[in-house]
Amino acid sequence: MVKVAVIGATGYTGAELVRLLVRHPHVELVALTSQSFAGQNMDGVYPSLRGFTGAQCEDLAPEEALARAEMVFLALPHGHAVAVAEEAEKRGVRVIDLGADLRFRDARVYEEWYGLKHTNPALSARAVYGLPEIYAREIAGARVVANPGCYPTSAILALAPLLKTGWADTESIIIDAKSGVSGAGRKAQLTSLFVECHENVHPYGVAGHRHTPEIEQELSLLAGEEVRISFTPHLLPMSRGILSTVYVNLREGVEEGELRQLYEEFYREAPFVHLLPREQWPHTRWVYGSNFCHLNLKVDRRTRRVIIASAIDNLTKGASGQAVQNLNLMFGWPETTGLEHPGLCP
Amino acid sequence: MVKVAVIGATGYTGAELVRLLVRHPHVELVALTSQSFAGQNMDGVYPSLRGFTGAQCEDLAPEEALARAEMVFLALPHGHAVAVAEEAEKRGVRVIDLGADLRFRDARVYEEWYGLKHTNPALSARAVYGLPEIYAREIAGARVVANPGCYPTSAILALAPLLKTGWADTESIIIDAKSGVSGAGRKAQLTSLFVECHENVHPYGVAGHRHTPEIEQELSLLAGEEVRISFTPHLLPMSRGILSTVYVNLREGVEEGELRQLYEEFYREAPFVHLLPREQWPHTRWVYGSNFCHLNLKVDRRTRRVIIASAIDNLTKGASGQAVQNLNLMFGWPETTGLEHPGLCP
Amino acid sequence: MVKVAVIGATGYTGAELVRLLVRHPHVELVALTSQSFAGQNMDGVYPSLRGFTGAQCEDLAPEEALARAEMVFLALPHGHAVAVAEEAEKRGVRVIDLGADLRFRDARVYEEWYGLKHTNPALSARAVYGLPEIYAREIAGARVVANPGCYPTSAILALAPLLKTGWADTESIIIDAKSGVSGAGRKAQLTSLFVECHENVHPYGVAGHRHTPEIEQELSLLAGEEVRISFTPHLLPMSRGILSTVYVNLREGVEEGELRQLYEEFYREAPFVHLLPREQWPHTRWVYGSNFCHLNLKVDRRTRRVIIASAIDNLTKGASGQAVQNLNLMFGWPETTGLEHPGLCP
Amino acid sequence: MVKVAVIGATGYTGAELVRLLVRHPHVELVALTSQSFAGQNMDGVYPSLRGFTGAQCEDLAPEEALARAEMVFLALPHGHAVAVAEEAEKRGVRVIDLGADLRFRDARVYEEWYGLKHTNPALSARAVYGLPEIYAREIAGARVVANPGCYPTSAILALAPLLKTGWADTESIIIDAKSGVSGAGRKAQLTSLFVECHENVHPYGVAGHRHTPEIEQELSLLAGEEVRISFTPHLLPMSRGILSTVYVNLREGVEEGELRQLYEEFYREAPFVHLLPREQWPHTRWVYGSNFCHLNLKVDRRTRRVIIASAIDNLTKGASGQAVQNLNLMFGWPETTGLEHPGLCP
Repeated sequence: MVKVAVIGATGYTGAELVRLLVRHPHVELVALTSQSFAGQNMDGVYPSLRGFTGAQCEDLAPEEALARAEMVFLALPHGHAVAVAEEAEKRGVRVIDLGADLRFRDARVYEEWYGLKHTNPALSARAVYGLPEIYAREIAGARVVANPGCYPTSAILALAPLLKTGWADTESIIIDAKSGVSGAGRKAQLTSLFVECHENVHPYGVAGHRHTPEIEQELSLLAGEEVRISFTPHLLPMSRGILSTVYVNLREGVEEGELRQLYEEFYREAPFVHLLPREQWPHTRWVYGSNFCHLNLKVDRRTRRVIIASAIDNLTKGASGQAVQNLNLMFGWPETTGLEHPGLCP
Repeated sequence: MVKVAVIGATGYTGAELVRLLVRHPHVELVALTSQSFAGQNMDGVYPSLRGFTGAQCEDLAPEEALARAEMVFLALPHGHAVAVAEEAEKRGVRVIDLGADLRFRDARVYEEWYGLKHTNPALSARAVYGLPEIYAREIAGARVVANPGCYPTSAILALAPLLKTGWADTESIIIDAKSGVSGAGRKAQLTSLFVECHENVHPYGVAGHRHTPEIEQELSLLAGEEVRISFTPHLLPMSRGILSTVYVNLREGVEEGELRQLYEEFYREAPFVHLLPREQWPHTRWVYGSNFCHLNLKVDRRTRRVIIASAIDNLTKGASGQAVQNLNLMFGWPETTGLEHPGLCP
Repeated sequence: MVKVAVIGATGYTGAELVRLLVRHPHVELVALTSQSFAGQNMDGVYPSLRGFTGAQCEDLAPEEALARAEMVFLALPHGHAVAVAEEAEKRGVRVIDLGADLRFRDARVYEEWYGLKHTNPALSARAVYGLPEIYAREIAGARVVANPGCYPTSAILALAPLLKTGWADTESIIIDAKSGVSGAGRKAQLTSLFVECHENVHPYGVAGHRHTPEIEQELSLLAGEEVRISFTPHLLPMSRGILSTVYVNLREGVEEGELRQLYEEFYREAPFVHLLPREQWPHTRWVYGSNFCHLNLKVDRRTRRVIIASAIDNLTKGASGQAVQNLNLMFGWPETTGLEHPGLCP
Repeated sequence: MVKVAVIGATGYTGAELVRLLVRHPHVELVALTSQSFAGQNMDGVYPSLRGFTGAQCEDLAPEEALARAEMVFLALPHGHAVAVAEEAEKRGVRVIDLGADLRFRDARVYEEWYGLKHTNPALSARAVYGLPEIYAREIAGARVVANPGCYPTSAILALAPLLKTGWADTESIIIDAKSGVSGAGRKAQLTSLFVECHENVHPYGVAGHRHTPEIEQELSLLAGEEVRISFTPHLLPMSRGILSTVYVNLREGVEEGELRQLYEEFYREAPFVHLLPREQWPHTRWVYGSNFCHLNLKVDRRTRRVIIASAIDNLTKGASGQAVQNLNLMFGWPETTGLEHPGLCP
């Protein structure tokens, strides 16, 4: 059993981690930290966990948590991960950070988009971007993994096979993404209130959302050239789920059949990615609460454009499930350990 | 008081028409037809109307309904409007058709996309496309108005000012639209069940939805050249509302300020269209149950692309409210008569 | 035109008041106060109001607001209304308070359940309880009206006719109420977040909710004896609406027909209360956004119990619509002025 | 591995069974029958199951399904189970019926409330009522189990401990229940449409719902006297979940502490039932997708009444999860096999 600490256990991604880890056969939870709920039992804060953990939330200093653990998950607001990750490295504790602090190979991009000074650009450059469908080997050997953002996960999985081919006009990429409200975290803010979100949809962060450069970094690496995208997130009246609809102009002569074959091939070994049959378009509820990503695509001959749709659960494959998948790779367990359940549907 | 009949009163657009017309100061409802609910009181089928109408739903032959009326609204499945409209013309009864049968200037386009033989192409060519923000004058003189589709209303209002300028790359237009479930009508079908739609989002009709050629017809007329678009509708877990997010590549040098001025100018006389202040992105709930269209736009300098968002209530501005607006124009009443209420928010 | 101020205009009940008052033919809005949104336009805070008001939210001292107005609505947190109402009385400004501070004839009950010292018990005793279906005459002559709570409105309308007859076992009354989330107000608190409320239902305030003594006060006055009830509110995943399901044991021999006749009679002059036909049970969406209350009842012969269901929109008939109804009565206008619209359905 | 057939696999309870059984370590699915989706892959009908089953839905005659299986689940409309169960008994195949056909010890009650002739009253009398918290021993030895209804499961678990004591006034029991829409099954009917259910709540089946006699049968057995209840179900805008709020008058002198101790004791060995701490009232989302039942209670001293709340997932503990729990008991496996996951929350 590997001793695992979760720093920031009572936010939505923290709670989702705990939901998955209490069933994980090789994990022992040794610390659940929380400032807001310190002193309360985790199953008092999330009574869904009753019977699965008797642990108490503690307001621990990071070193205290690290002292108990071989592995630590960080589910913290931006700007807090670097110091903990440094300390973890010193102590030989492996780290998966669910925030953005270590996702950029070039910390200046982080500084520009997040408006924060990065205190350890070298660490950021060294951290492995934890998207197992692309970086499985690097993750297996990593000490520090930067878990991808929810929107980037959904967008990159939709585009990775195509961008490696040279068949796409990389200046034409548009990603129109739709997310459930849990992506905004468990914060007491007006914009996340039920009444503000229900029977409602709206775009936000238009031409300026922080996941833009993260997506561009990875797409550029895949394409071998600098890629600039339009990315527009929307808030939808649902709790979980991200659907990304992606539009790309194709070079002359690319046929849908080739693309389907390409995607099948690319994800043949990926246990969590499924290309659905023609005309069966992804529904987020099919991956609800699971670690799957469902994809489909269609070439529109009238416009020479491919439309790709990608559905994930933002808290699972888009955050905590993917973190567990990374954990499995880091410790050499089967990639699906603790994640072998279908979406909750109906 | 003008005598008005509603053919197909118990579907969602029919009921929305009745909701608006019972408060209209110049309208007398003389016939509400329904096959499924014939013999029932309208306020038994929609108890929200209790106290507003004592009318009974009748399974009338069209001629019977026309015999009572000076004006008729058709809220029928595709393929049923032409015969009724012909009969209405003979009798001198004016017509607003909420279906697609008369929306196409070239009936062959209708035949191709709807898979039905058109029985009166000349009537289709002659009917006025009932988008008041563009065709107010033609509507005022019309005998037969083809009320626009819900998606086309939202998309065309988002693009009309821009397309008249020549500043847009008309091959680059992408319309990613999100709709509430009422757009599917009041049909007992699995895909519209609560459990199938809730906590869910998915695209449908990708690269093949029937509103595509309708949007293209109007955009082409505005642009003065043939326009082809990518249009992807999505089904969202909400009852009412359409949000269209539109992406267009701009010619060199077009600035956001110019565009904002252009839109302000274009819609200066339009009582139902509002360009919101910078960075206040449309929310469908702000126009909930109202006839308004809220717009905003932003130029992304990184990609030389403008992103335009447009929100309407699909049953009101996207169908029955717009039909009432057309009615007002046809009878010379103020355009806003019976529609002077804000969105129901919160 | 009567000059009207709204103190606390940007909470949900304040905004609902403004939504209704901007269409009211005899009202001029002279002040909209708000602390959180002072300096912003009302239609910036609620863009649904765009085109209906250009007013700015102001952080006014109550006296300043009162100085402009003939009539003031108070939509404030508990404990703040008494001082403003006293000042209003001095200045001859009429008051409708939407909070609880003036609802109790015996201020000690308020003190016990709200945990606040009441500073003017005489004013509380003198204020008229603003339920027009029972106190229309008193409201017409009132200077200070205490607008009922949302749950009490729904519960009292369900029970009033029965309790005046002596046919009910007044010790047996159980009120199981279900409310949308807007009843919790526009407060940034975890329990009102979308993710916490969606796909969820739970009771709260069991055997201790503050609306209990308010309901008991009015039921006791109707019955002519002290009535004690069980009242359990539940939070439902919807924005608007309250459904109360009420259970009462009947004296021997009371028949459903008699009860239906009794209710018809009692509400014959009430323009907003409808007893639905047998077996058509109230749906909250039928009164959505409207000032109506829909009722139905059934006698269960197996248990000698009547089950009564009552549906209102908590923000309209349960708060701001009822306040406008009271305004109409206080100024001698037709009771329905500004409220003549059906529920928004579908 | 036990060979298991699911008759009626593509309705909501059928699909929930499959969701649970594909992860069950001792089960091999040998037949999934469906009339509507015969010939389609199960993971085409429910793509959430992609990667978990390659089985095809078949329109099998019951005997064909029985010929392959040692154990059969029936998820059929009322009136179809008896013949299959008879055939299964003959062949030595064990049966769990998720419908109502075999729930009544006295088949005349079934005939009266369901309006169908019962063709095998002896089988109905002999079948074991599959509520493991009460009948674990009988289930372990049963050949035919009648799986309880969703509402009855939630109501009986709320009341069982109390009714065995004699502390309750058994004439005073009121059960006000709130259900998600999946309880209505996967039927294409207007009343289950998204638009009809969303932002809405209403009672139905008042004083006449078919689960009434089922609840009364079990409560009467527990109390040792005939119990008559008022039971009112409500339809809520959510997919899954039942909350029952129960009101019972107590005999003099019963204290809340005693009751809490009683419930703790009664459910000490029940792995799926939790009495929550004081004042933490059950939320259906805490048991979402899980087999748990959360309870709480409070004694209201003002009225000498206990209020008990009980939350389950109607498709899991209220149907298919409980069926798997019964399966485990029938085959001597640990009761929780295949059900060891917490509710999906947030």
